Amino acid sequence: MSDETVLRGSAARPSGRAIKALTFDVFGTVVDWRSSIAREAEVLLAPKGLRLDWGDFADRWRALYQPAMQAVRSGERPFVVLDELHRENLLALLGERGIVLSGAEVEGLNRAWHRLDPWPDVIEGLGRLKPHFVLATLSNGNVALMVNMARRAGLAWDVILGAEVARAYKPEPRAYDCAALMLGLEPAECLMVAAHPADLRAAAARGFRTAYVHRPLENGSGREPQRPPDAFDYCADDLIELAGLLEPRRPEV
Amino acid sequence: MSDETVLRGSAARPSGRAIKALTFDVFGTVVDWRSSIAREAEVLLAPKGLRLDWGDFADRWRALYQPAMQAVRSGERPFVVLDELHRENLLALLGERGIVLSGAEVEGLNRAWHRLDPWPDVIEGLGRLKPHFVLATLSNGNVALMVNMARRAGLAWDVILGAEVARAYKPEPRAYDCAALMLGLEPAECLMVAAHPADLRAAAARGFRTAYVHRPLENGSGREPQRPPDAFDYCADDLIELAGLLEPRRPEV
Repeated sequence: MSDETVLRGSAARPSGRAIKALTFDVFGTVVDWRSSIAREAEVLLAPKGLRLDWGDFADRWRALYQPAMQAVRSGERPFVVLDELHRENLLALLGERGIVLSGAEVEGLNRAWHRLDPWPDVIEGLGRLKPHFVLATLSNGNVALMVNMARRAGLAWDVILGAEVARAYKPEPRAYDCAALMLGLEPAECLMVAAHPADLRAAAARGFRTAYVHRPLENGSGREPQRPPDAFDYCADDLIELAGLLEPRRPEV
Repeated sequence: MSDETVLRGSAARPSGRAIKALTFDVFGTVVDWRSSIAREAEVLLAPKGLRLDWGDFADRWRALYQPAMQAVRSGERPFVVLDELHRENLLALLGERGIVLSGAEVEGLNRAWHRLDPWPDVIEGLGRLKPHFVLATLSNGNVALMVNMARRAGLAWDVILGAEVARAYKPEPRAYDCAALMLGLEPAECLMVAAHPADLRAAAARGFRTAYVHRPLENGSGREPQRPPDAFDYCADDLIELAGLLEPRRPEV
Protein backbone atom coordinates (compact mmCIF):
# COMPACT_ATOMS: atom_id res chain seq x y z
CA MET A 1 0.00 0.00 0.00
CA SER A 2 1.59 3.29 -1.07
CA ASP A 3 1.55 6.47 0.95
CA GLU A 4 -0.75 7.86 -1.73
CA THR A 5 -3.30 5.17 -1.01
CA VAL A 6 -3.12 5.74 2.69
CA LEU A 7 -3.67 9.46 2.28
CA ARG A 8 -6.65 9.09 -0.02
CA GLY A 9 -10.15 9.06 1.26
CA SER A 10 -9.40 9.65 4.87
CA ALA A 11 -12.09 10.63 7.32
CA ALA A 12 -11.34 11.63 10.87
CA ARG A 13 -15.05 10.95 11.55
CA PRO A 14 -15.44 13.70 14.06
CA SER A 15 -18.10 13.14 16.62
CA GLY A 16 -20.55 15.72 17.90
CA ARG A 17 -23.06 17.63 15.84
CA ALA A 18 -24.23 16.13 12.57
CA ILE A 19 -23.17 17.94 9.42
CA LYS A 20 -26.19 19.57 7.81
CA ALA A 21 -24.70 21.80 5.13
CA LEU A 22 -21.67 21.71 2.84
CA THR A 23 -20.20 25.11 2.01
CA PHE A 24 -18.03 25.07 -1.08
CA ASP A 25 -15.11 27.04 -2.23
CA VAL A 26 -15.67 27.25 -6.00
CA PHE A 27 -12.66 28.54 -8.00
CA GLY A 28 -10.26 25.62 -8.16
CA THR A 29 -12.32 23.33 -5.94
CA VAL A 30 -15.45 22.99 -8.10
CA VAL A 31 -14.38 24.56 -11.40
CA ASP A 32 -11.16 24.50 -13.41
CA TRP A 33 -10.66 28.24 -13.79
CA ARG A 34 -7.25 27.99 -15.48
CA SER A 35 -8.21 25.87 -18.49
CA SER A 36 -11.47 27.75 -18.97
CA ILE A 37 -9.89 31.21 -18.87
CA ALA A 38 -7.01 30.11 -21.09
CA ARG A 39 -9.48 28.76 -23.66
CA GLU A 40 -11.63 31.90 -23.68
CA ALA A 41 -8.61 34.21 -23.90
CA GLU A 42 -7.32 32.25 -26.89
CA VAL A 43 -10.71 32.34 -28.63
CA LEU A 44 -10.83 36.12 -28.33
CA LEU A 45 -7.18 37.07 -28.77
CA ALA A 46 -5.68 34.53 -31.17
CA PRO A 47 -7.73 35.83 -34.14
CA LYS A 48 -6.15 39.24 -33.47
CA GLY A 49 -2.75 37.71 -34.21
CA LEU A 50 -1.68 37.44 -30.58
CA ARG A 51 0.48 34.44 -29.78
CA LEU A 52 0.57 34.00 -26.02
CA ASP A 53 0.95 31.15 -23.58
CA TRP A 54 -2.76 31.09 -22.73
CA GLY A 55 -2.29 29.21 -19.46
CA ASP A 56 0.22 31.85 -18.45
CA PHE A 57 -2.30 34.56 -19.38
CA ALA A 58 -4.82 32.90 -17.04
CA ASP A 59 -2.20 32.63 -14.28
CA ARG A 60 -1.26 36.29 -14.56
CA TRP A 61 -4.89 37.40 -14.42
CA ARG A 62 -5.48 35.16 -11.43
CA ALA A 63 -2.29 36.40 -9.73
CA LEU A 64 -3.87 39.84 -9.38
CA TYR A 65 -6.87 38.36 -7.53
CA GLN A 66 -5.50 38.14 -3.98
CA PRO A 67 -3.89 41.61 -3.96
CA ALA A 68 -7.13 43.15 -5.28
CA MET A 69 -9.20 41.49 -2.56
CA GLN A 70 -6.59 42.45 0.02
CA ALA A 71 -7.27 46.13 -0.68
CA VAL A 72 -10.89 45.48 0.31
CA ARG A 73 -10.02 43.32 3.31
CA SER A 74 -7.63 45.94 4.67
CA GLY A 75 -10.27 48.65 4.38
CA GLU A 76 -8.16 50.56 1.84
CA ARG A 77 -11.24 50.60 -0.39
CA PRO A 78 -14.92 49.79 0.19
CA PHE A 79 -16.37 46.43 -0.77
CA VAL A 80 -16.71 45.88 -4.51
CA VAL A 81 -17.79 42.65 -6.16
CA LEU A 82 -15.37 40.26 -7.81
CA ASP A 83 -16.65 41.02 -11.33
CA GLU A 84 -15.35 44.56 -10.82
CA LEU A 85 -11.99 43.41 -9.40
CA HIS A 86 -11.63 40.96 -12.29
CA ARG A 87 -12.32 43.78 -14.76
CA GLU A 88 -9.75 46.10 -13.19
CA ASN A 89 -7.19 43.28 -13.15
CA LEU A 90 -7.89 42.40 -16.78
CA LEU A 91 -7.42 46.01 -17.84
CA ALA A 92 -4.12 46.12 -15.94
CA LEU A 93 -2.95 42.90 -17.59
CA LEU A 94 -3.96 44.05 -21.07
CA GLY A 95 -2.25 47.39 -20.44
CA GLU A 96 1.02 45.69 -19.45
CA ARG A 97 0.94 43.68 -22.64
CA GLY A 98 -0.10 46.59 -24.85
CA ILE A 99 -3.28 44.77 -25.89
CA VAL A 100 -6.14 47.06 -26.89
CA LEU A 101 -9.70 45.71 -26.77
CA SER A 102 -13.08 47.35 -27.17
CA GLY A 103 -15.28 47.83 -24.12
CA ALA A 104 -17.54 45.03 -25.31
CA GLU A 105 -14.57 42.69 -25.76
CA VAL A 106 -13.33 43.46 -22.25
CA GLU A 107 -16.81 42.76 -20.87
CA GLY A 108 -17.06 39.55 -22.85
CA LEU A 109 -13.70 38.25 -21.67
CA ASN A 110 -14.40 39.32 -18.09
CA ARG A 111 -17.59 37.27 -18.23
CA ALA A 112 -15.47 34.18 -18.97
CA TRP A 113 -15.39 33.78 -15.16
CA HIS A 114 -19.16 33.12 -15.37
CA ARG A 115 -18.48 30.27 -17.83
CA LEU A 116 -15.91 28.13 -16.01
CA ASP A 117 -16.14 24.38 -16.49
CA PRO A 118 -16.50 22.05 -13.52
CA TRP A 119 -13.98 19.30 -12.82
CA PRO A 120 -15.21 15.99 -14.30
CA ASP A 121 -16.44 14.54 -10.97
CA VAL A 122 -18.46 17.55 -9.85
CA ILE A 123 -21.90 16.98 -11.36
CA GLU A 124 -22.10 13.39 -10.14
CA GLY A 125 -20.58 14.29 -6.78
CA LEU A 126 -22.99 17.14 -6.08
CA GLY A 127 -25.87 14.92 -7.21
CA ARG A 128 -24.90 12.31 -4.62
CA LEU A 129 -24.42 14.88 -1.86
CA LYS A 130 -27.61 16.86 -2.54
CA PRO A 131 -30.15 14.49 -0.95
CA HIS A 132 -28.24 14.49 2.33
CA PHE A 133 -26.94 18.03 2.76
CA VAL A 134 -27.75 21.64 1.98
CA LEU A 135 -25.29 22.61 -0.76
CA ALA A 136 -24.09 26.21 -0.53
CA THR A 137 -21.42 28.18 -2.30
CA LEU A 138 -19.04 30.01 0.02
CA SER A 139 -16.96 31.66 -2.65
CA ASN A 140 -15.38 35.04 -3.18
CA GLY A 141 -17.24 35.17 -6.50
CA ASN A 142 -20.26 37.47 -6.64
CA VAL A 143 -23.84 36.27 -6.78
CA ALA A 144 -24.45 36.85 -10.51
CA LEU A 145 -21.20 35.08 -11.38
CA MET A 146 -22.14 32.06 -9.25
CA VAL A 147 -25.71 31.94 -10.62
CA ASN A 148 -24.63 32.15 -14.25
CA MET A 149 -21.88 29.56 -13.73
CA ALA A 150 -24.29 27.19 -11.99
CA ARG A 151 -26.95 27.44 -14.68
CA ARG A 152 -24.47 26.84 -17.49
CA ALA A 153 -22.65 23.96 -15.77
CA GLY A 154 -25.62 22.42 -13.96
CA LEU A 155 -24.29 22.87 -10.42
CA ALA A 156 -27.00 21.84 -7.97
CA TRP A 157 -26.60 24.58 -5.33
CA ASP A 158 -29.40 25.17 -2.87
CA VAL A 159 -28.16 28.65 -2.05
CA ILE A 160 -25.51 31.14 -3.14
CA LEU A 161 -23.61 32.56 -0.18
CA GLY A 162 -20.13 34.05 0.11
CA ALA A 163 -18.36 37.36 -0.27
CA GLU A 164 -21.07 39.53 -1.82
CA VAL A 165 -23.75 38.42 0.62
CA ALA A 166 -21.39 38.82 3.60
CA ARG A 167 -19.69 41.90 2.11
CA ALA A 168 -16.40 40.36 3.18
CA TYR A 169 -13.82 38.34 1.27
CA LYS A 170 -12.55 35.03 2.60
CA PRO A 171 -10.56 34.39 4.72
CA GLU A 172 -12.17 37.17 6.75
CA PRO A 173 -14.10 35.59 9.64
CA ARG A 174 -17.27 37.43 8.64
CA ALA A 175 -17.50 35.49 5.35
CA TYR A 176 -17.79 32.18 7.24
CA ASP A 177 -19.86 33.52 10.12
CA CYS A 178 -22.43 35.04 7.77
CA ALA A 179 -22.85 31.77 5.85
CA ALA A 180 -23.57 29.72 8.98
CA LEU A 181 -25.90 32.42 10.31
CA MET A 182 -27.91 32.61 7.08
CA LEU A 183 -28.15 28.82 6.93
CA GLY A 184 -29.58 28.92 10.46
CA LEU A 185 -26.89 26.47 11.56
CA GLU A 186 -24.15 26.24 14.12
CA PRO A 187 -20.71 26.46 12.47
CA ALA A 188 -20.04 22.85 13.56
CA GLU A 189 -23.01 21.77 11.43
CA CYS A 190 -21.28 23.21 8.33
CA LEU A 191 -18.56 21.41 6.40
CA MET A 192 -16.26 23.70 4.41
CA VAL A 193 -15.13 21.96 1.21
CA ALA A 194 -12.03 23.40 -0.46
CA ALA A 195 -8.85 22.57 -2.31
CA HIS A 196 -6.98 25.28 -0.40
CA PRO A 197 -5.67 24.67 3.11
CA ALA A 198 -5.73 28.37 4.06
CA ASP A 199 -9.48 28.53 3.34
CA LEU A 200 -10.09 25.40 5.40
CA ARG A 201 -7.97 26.67 8.30
CA ALA A 202 -9.87 29.97 8.32
CA ALA A 203 -13.20 28.09 8.29
CA ALA A 204 -12.02 25.79 11.10
CA ALA A 205 -11.09 28.86 13.15
CA ARG A 206 -14.77 29.88 12.95
CA GLY A 207 -15.92 26.44 14.07
CA PHE A 208 -16.62 24.80 10.69
CA ARG A 209 -15.74 21.20 9.95
CA THR A 210 -13.36 20.80 7.02
CA ALA A 211 -12.99 18.65 3.89
CA TYR A 212 -9.88 18.94 1.75
CA VAL A 213 -10.32 18.04 -1.92
CA HIS A 214 -7.07 17.48 -3.81
CA ARG A 215 -7.06 19.27 -7.17
CA PRO A 216 -3.55 18.67 -8.50
CA LEU A 217 -4.21 20.32 -11.86
CA GLU A 218 -5.61 23.63 -10.59
CA ASN A 219 -2.41 25.48 -11.51
CA GLY A 220 -1.59 23.41 -14.58
CA SER A 221 0.37 20.22 -15.02
CA GLY A 222 3.86 20.11 -13.55
CA ARG A 223 2.74 22.37 -10.70
CA GLU A 224 0.86 19.94 -8.52
CA PRO A 225 0.49 21.09 -4.93
CA GLN A 226 1.71 18.90 -2.08
CA ARG A 227 -1.04 17.27 -0.10
CA PRO A 228 -1.21 19.37 3.03
CA PRO A 229 0.01 18.02 6.36
CA ASP A 230 -2.97 19.61 8.12
CA ALA A 231 -5.40 17.26 9.82
CA PHE A 232 -8.72 18.06 8.17
CA ASP A 233 -11.88 16.16 9.07
CA TYR A 234 -12.12 14.66 5.58
CA CYS A 235 -9.67 14.32 2.75
CA ALA A 236 -10.76 13.23 -0.74
CA ASP A 237 -9.54 13.20 -4.30
CA ASP A 238 -12.84 14.44 -5.69
CA LEU A 239 -16.47 15.08 -4.80
CA ILE A 240 -17.58 11.54 -5.63
CA GLU A 241 -15.12 10.20 -3.10
CA LEU A 242 -16.24 12.83 -0.60
CA ALA A 243 -19.86 11.75 -1.09
CA GLY A 244 -18.83 8.19 -0.33
CA LEU A 245 -17.09 9.27 2.86
CA LEU A 246 -20.10 11.27 4.02
CA GLU A 247 -22.87 8.87 3.11
CA PRO A 248 -24.46 7.30 6.14
CA ARG A 249 -23.10 3.84 6.75
CA ARG A 250 -25.72 1.13 6.58
CA PRO A 251 -25.73 -0.99 9.68
CA GLU A 252 -24.19 -4.42 9.17
CA VAL A 253 -26.81 -7.11 8.91
CA MET B 1 -66.73 34.34 -23.76
CA SER B 2 -67.02 35.32 -20.11
CA ASP B 3 -65.22 38.18 -18.44
CA GLU B 4 -63.25 35.54 -16.57
CA THR B 5 -61.89 34.15 -19.81
CA VAL B 6 -60.98 37.56 -21.10
CA LEU B 7 -59.09 38.38 -17.94
CA ARG B 8 -57.12 35.17 -17.88
CA GLY B 9 -53.73 34.88 -19.41
CA SER B 10 -53.25 38.43 -20.47
CA ALA B 11 -49.88 39.73 -21.52
CA ALA B 12 -49.20 43.35 -22.26
CA ARG B 13 -46.09 42.11 -24.13
CA PRO B 14 -43.97 45.04 -23.15
CA SER B 15 -41.21 45.85 -25.54
CA GLY B 16 -37.70 46.91 -24.59
CA ARG B 17 -35.21 44.86 -22.61
CA ALA B 18 -35.62 41.11 -22.56
CA ILE B 19 -36.61 39.58 -19.25
CA LYS B 20 -33.70 37.58 -17.86
CA ALA B 21 -34.77 36.76 -14.30
CA LEU B 22 -38.03 36.07 -12.51
CA THR B 23 -38.12 37.21 -8.89
CA PHE B 24 -40.82 35.51 -6.87
CA ASP B 25 -42.86 36.46 -3.91
CA VAL B 26 -43.21 33.16 -2.05
CA PHE B 27 -45.82 33.20 0.77
CA GLY B 28 -49.17 32.98 -0.99
CA THR B 29 -47.74 33.16 -4.51
CA VAL B 30 -45.70 29.94 -4.52
CA VAL B 31 -46.83 28.20 -1.34
CA ASP B 32 -50.18 27.81 0.41
CA TRP B 33 -49.16 29.05 3.85
CA ARG B 34 -52.68 28.94 5.33
CA SER B 35 -53.47 25.26 4.78
CA SER B 36 -49.96 24.20 5.75
CA ILE B 37 -49.88 26.20 9.00
CA ALA B 38 -53.43 25.12 9.90
CA ARG B 39 -52.46 21.47 9.40
CA GLU B 40 -49.28 21.71 11.48
CA ALA B 41 -51.03 23.60 14.28
CA GLU B 42 -53.71 20.92 14.43
CA VAL B 43 -51.15 18.09 14.51
CA LEU B 44 -49.40 19.66 17.49
CA LEU B 45 -52.31 21.15 19.42
CA ALA B 46 -55.28 18.84 18.85
CA PRO B 47 -53.69 15.98 20.86
CA LYS B 48 -53.49 18.44 23.77
CA GLY B 49 -57.29 18.65 23.72
CA LEU B 50 -57.41 22.04 22.03
CA ARG B 51 -60.35 22.50 19.67
CA LEU B 52 -59.68 25.52 17.50
CA ASP B 53 -60.59 26.68 14.02
CA TRP B 54 -57.14 25.86 12.61
CA GLY B 55 -57.51 28.10 9.55
CA ASP B 56 -58.36 30.93 11.91
CA PHE B 57 -55.27 30.10 13.99
CA ALA B 58 -53.15 30.42 10.81
CA ASP B 59 -54.87 33.69 9.92
CA ARG B 60 -54.24 35.19 13.35
CA TRP B 61 -50.58 34.22 13.29
CA ARG B 62 -50.23 35.67 9.79
CA ALA B 63 -52.08 38.85 10.81
CA LEU B 64 -49.20 39.74 13.12
CA TYR B 65 -46.72 39.52 10.22
CA GLN B 66 -47.10 42.97 8.66
CA PRO B 67 -47.09 44.90 11.97
CA ALA B 68 -43.94 43.02 13.06
CA MET B 69 -42.13 43.85 9.82
CA GLN B 70 -43.36 47.43 10.04
CA ALA B 71 -41.44 47.89 13.28
CA VAL B 72 -38.27 47.01 11.34
CA ARG B 73 -39.18 49.08 8.28
CA SER B 74 -39.85 52.14 10.42
CA GLY B 75 -36.50 51.81 12.15
CA GLU B 76 -38.18 51.24 15.52
CA ARG B 77 -36.03 48.12 15.86
CA PRO B 78 -32.99 46.80 13.97
CA PHE B 79 -33.36 44.18 11.25
CA VAL B 80 -34.24 40.72 12.53
CA VAL B 81 -35.05 37.73 10.36
CA LEU B 82 -38.57 36.48 9.79
CA ASP B 83 -38.02 33.28 11.81
CA GLU B 84 -37.55 35.54 14.83
CA LEU B 85 -40.63 37.68 14.06
CA HIS B 86 -42.68 34.51 13.51
CA ARG B 87 -41.52 33.19 16.90
CA GLU B 88 -42.43 36.41 18.72
CA ASN B 89 -45.82 36.46 16.99
CA LEU B 90 -46.49 32.82 17.86
CA LEU B 91 -45.66 33.44 21.52
CA ALA B 92 -48.03 36.43 21.53
CA LEU B 93 -50.80 34.36 19.93
CA LEU B 94 -50.31 31.45 22.33
CA GLY B 95 -50.28 33.89 25.25
CA GLU B 96 -53.59 35.44 24.18
CA ARG B 97 -55.16 32.02 24.03
CA GLY B 98 -53.58 30.80 27.25
CA ILE B 99 -51.84 27.95 25.44
CA VAL B 100 -48.64 26.77 27.13
CA LEU B 101 -46.04 24.92 25.02
CA SER B 102 -42.51 23.80 25.74
CA GLY B 103 -39.62 25.62 24.09
CA ALA B 104 -39.09 22.66 21.76
CA GLU B 105 -42.78 22.67 20.78
CA VAL B 106 -42.66 26.40 20.02
CA GLU B 107 -39.56 25.87 17.87
CA GLY B 108 -41.17 22.94 16.09
CA LEU B 109 -44.36 24.85 15.29
CA ASN B 110 -42.40 27.93 14.26
CA ARG B 111 -40.49 25.76 11.80
CA ALA B 112 -43.80 24.91 10.12
CA TRP B 113 -43.08 27.97 7.95
CA HIS B 114 -40.11 26.00 6.55
CA ARG B 115 -42.49 23.21 5.53
CA LEU B 116 -45.17 25.00 3.52
CA ASP B 117 -46.65 23.15 0.56
CA PRO B 118 -46.54 24.65 -2.94
CA TRP B 119 -49.72 25.26 -4.94
CA PRO B 120 -50.38 22.32 -7.29
CA ASP B 121 -49.06 24.07 -10.44
CA VAL B 122 -45.76 25.26 -8.98
CA ILE B 123 -43.37 22.38 -9.60
CA GLU B 124 -44.37 22.03 -13.24
CA GLY B 125 -44.48 25.79 -13.74
CA LEU B 126 -41.01 26.40 -12.32
CA GLY B 127 -39.69 23.48 -14.35
CA ARG B 128 -40.98 25.09 -17.54
CA LEU B 129 -39.63 28.53 -16.62
CA LYS B 130 -36.20 27.36 -15.45
CA PRO B 131 -34.55 26.77 -18.85
CA HIS B 132 -35.40 30.31 -19.95
CA PHE B 133 -34.97 32.48 -16.88
CA VAL B 134 -32.97 32.81 -13.69
CA LEU B 135 -35.41 31.89 -10.92
CA ALA B 136 -34.90 33.88 -7.72
CA THR B 137 -36.87 34.22 -4.53
CA LEU B 138 -37.61 37.80 -3.53
CA SER B 139 -39.43 37.03 -0.32
CA ASN B 140 -39.54 38.45 3.16
CA GLY B 141 -38.70 34.96 4.42
CA ASN B 142 -35.15 34.43 5.64
CA VAL B 143 -32.54 32.40 3.81
CA ALA B 144 -32.72 29.24 5.96
CA LEU B 145 -36.51 29.22 5.72
CA MET B 146 -36.39 29.52 1.92
CA VAL B 147 -33.67 26.87 1.59
CA ASN B 148 -35.45 24.34 3.80
CA MET B 149 -38.78 24.97 2.08
CA ALA B 150 -37.22 24.58 -1.36
CA ARG B 151 -35.46 21.32 -0.51
CA ARG B 152 -38.60 19.79 0.98
CA ALA B 153 -40.93 20.92 -1.80
CA GLY B 154 -38.52 20.65 -4.74
CA LEU B 155 -38.61 24.32 -5.73
CA ALA B 156 -36.04 24.89 -8.47
CA TRP B 157 -34.59 28.24 -7.35
CA ASP B 158 -31.27 29.36 -8.79
CA VAL B 159 -30.72 31.82 -5.96
CA ILE B 160 -32.28 32.90 -2.67
CA LEU B 161 -32.61 36.68 -2.45
CA GLY B 162 -34.98 38.90 -0.48
CA ALA B 163 -35.26 40.51 2.93
CA GLU B 164 -32.38 38.89 4.81
CA VAL B 165 -29.87 39.41 2.02
CA ALA B 166 -31.02 43.02 1.49
CA ARG B 167 -31.61 43.60 5.22
CA ALA B 168 -34.85 45.30 4.25
CA TYR B 169 -38.42 44.02 4.15
CA LYS B 170 -40.56 44.47 1.05
CA PRO B 171 -42.04 46.82 -0.01
CA GLU B 172 -38.96 48.85 0.91
CA PRO B 173 -37.19 49.90 -2.30
CA ARG B 174 -33.91 48.42 -1.08
CA ALA B 175 -35.35 44.89 -1.17
CA TYR B 176 -35.98 45.12 -4.92
CA ASP B 177 -32.88 47.18 -5.73
CA CYS B 178 -30.61 44.70 -3.96
CA ALA B 179 -32.08 41.75 -5.87
CA ALA B 180 -31.50 43.33 -9.29
CA LEU B 181 -28.01 44.45 -8.27
CA MET B 182 -26.99 41.00 -7.04
CA LEU B 183 -28.38 39.39 -10.20
CA GLY B 184 -26.20 41.79 -12.19
CA LEU B 185 -29.29 42.93 -14.10
CA GLU B 186 -31.14 46.12 -14.85
CA PRO B 187 -34.47 46.23 -12.98
CA ALA B 188 -36.27 46.11 -16.37
CA GLU B 189 -34.66 42.71 -16.99
CA CYS B 190 -36.36 41.37 -13.84
CA LEU B 191 -39.98 40.22 -13.70
CA MET B 192 -41.54 40.33 -10.24
CA VAL B 193 -44.06 37.49 -9.85
CA ALA B 194 -46.59 37.89 -7.04
CA ALA B 195 -50.19 37.35 -6.03
CA HIS B 196 -50.22 40.69 -4.22
CA PRO B 197 -50.75 43.95 -6.11
CA ALA B 198 -48.93 46.06 -3.50
CA ASP B 199 -45.76 43.98 -3.95
CA LEU B 200 -45.99 44.32 -7.74
CA ARG B 201 -46.60 48.06 -7.57
CA ALA B 202 -43.55 48.50 -5.28
CA ALA B 203 -41.43 46.42 -7.69
CA ALA B 204 -42.69 48.42 -10.68
CA ALA B 205 -41.74 51.65 -8.88
CA ARG B 206 -38.14 50.33 -8.86
CA GLY B 207 -38.26 49.54 -12.59
CA PHE B 208 -39.18 45.84 -12.47
CA ARG B 209 -41.63 44.26 -14.89
CA THR B 210 -44.63 42.65 -13.21
CA ALA B 211 -46.62 39.42 -13.39
CA TYR B 212 -49.76 39.01 -11.31
CA VAL B 213 -50.68 35.44 -10.39
CA HIS B 214 -54.23 34.99 -9.11
CA ARG B 215 -54.34 32.83 -5.95
CA PRO B 216 -58.00 32.94 -4.92
CA LEU B 217 -57.58 30.46 -2.07
CA GLU B 218 -54.67 32.14 -0.28
CA ASN B 219 -56.94 33.37 2.53
CA GLY B 220 -59.28 30.37 2.50
CA SER B 221 -62.43 29.67 0.55
CA GLY B 222 -65.14 32.30 0.64
CA ARG B 223 -62.52 35.06 0.87
CA GLU B 224 -61.33 35.21 -2.73
CA PRO B 225 -59.63 38.48 -3.60
CA GLN B 226 -60.87 40.55 -6.51
CA ARG B 227 -58.66 40.48 -9.54
CA PRO B 228 -56.85 43.79 -9.36
CA PRO B 229 -57.65 46.59 -11.80
CA ASP B 230 -53.94 47.42 -12.11
CA ALA B 231 -52.34 46.99 -15.48
CA PHE B 232 -49.54 44.54 -14.87
CA ASP B 233 -47.31 43.29 -17.70
CA TYR B 234 -48.59 39.73 -17.32
CA CYS B 235 -51.60 38.25 -15.60
CA ALA B 236 -51.98 34.50 -15.11
CA ASP B 237 -53.96 32.01 -13.06
CA ASP B 238 -50.92 29.95 -12.19
CA LEU B 239 -47.25 29.42 -13.00
CA ILE B 240 -47.95 26.99 -15.83
CA GLU B 241 -50.01 29.63 -17.56
CA LEU B 242 -47.31 32.21 -16.87
CA ALA B 243 -44.72 29.91 -18.46
CA GLY B 244 -46.92 29.68 -21.55
CA LEU B 245 -47.18 33.46 -21.76
CA LEU B 246 -43.42 33.92 -21.41
CA GLU B 247 -42.20 31.13 -23.66
CA PRO B 248 -40.65 32.43 -26.84
CA ARG B 249 -43.10 32.30 -29.71
CA ARG B 250 -41.91 30.17 -32.59
CA PRO B 251 -41.87 32.09 -35.80
CA GLU B 252 -44.72 31.17 -38.12
CA VAL B 253 -43.56 28.98 -40.98
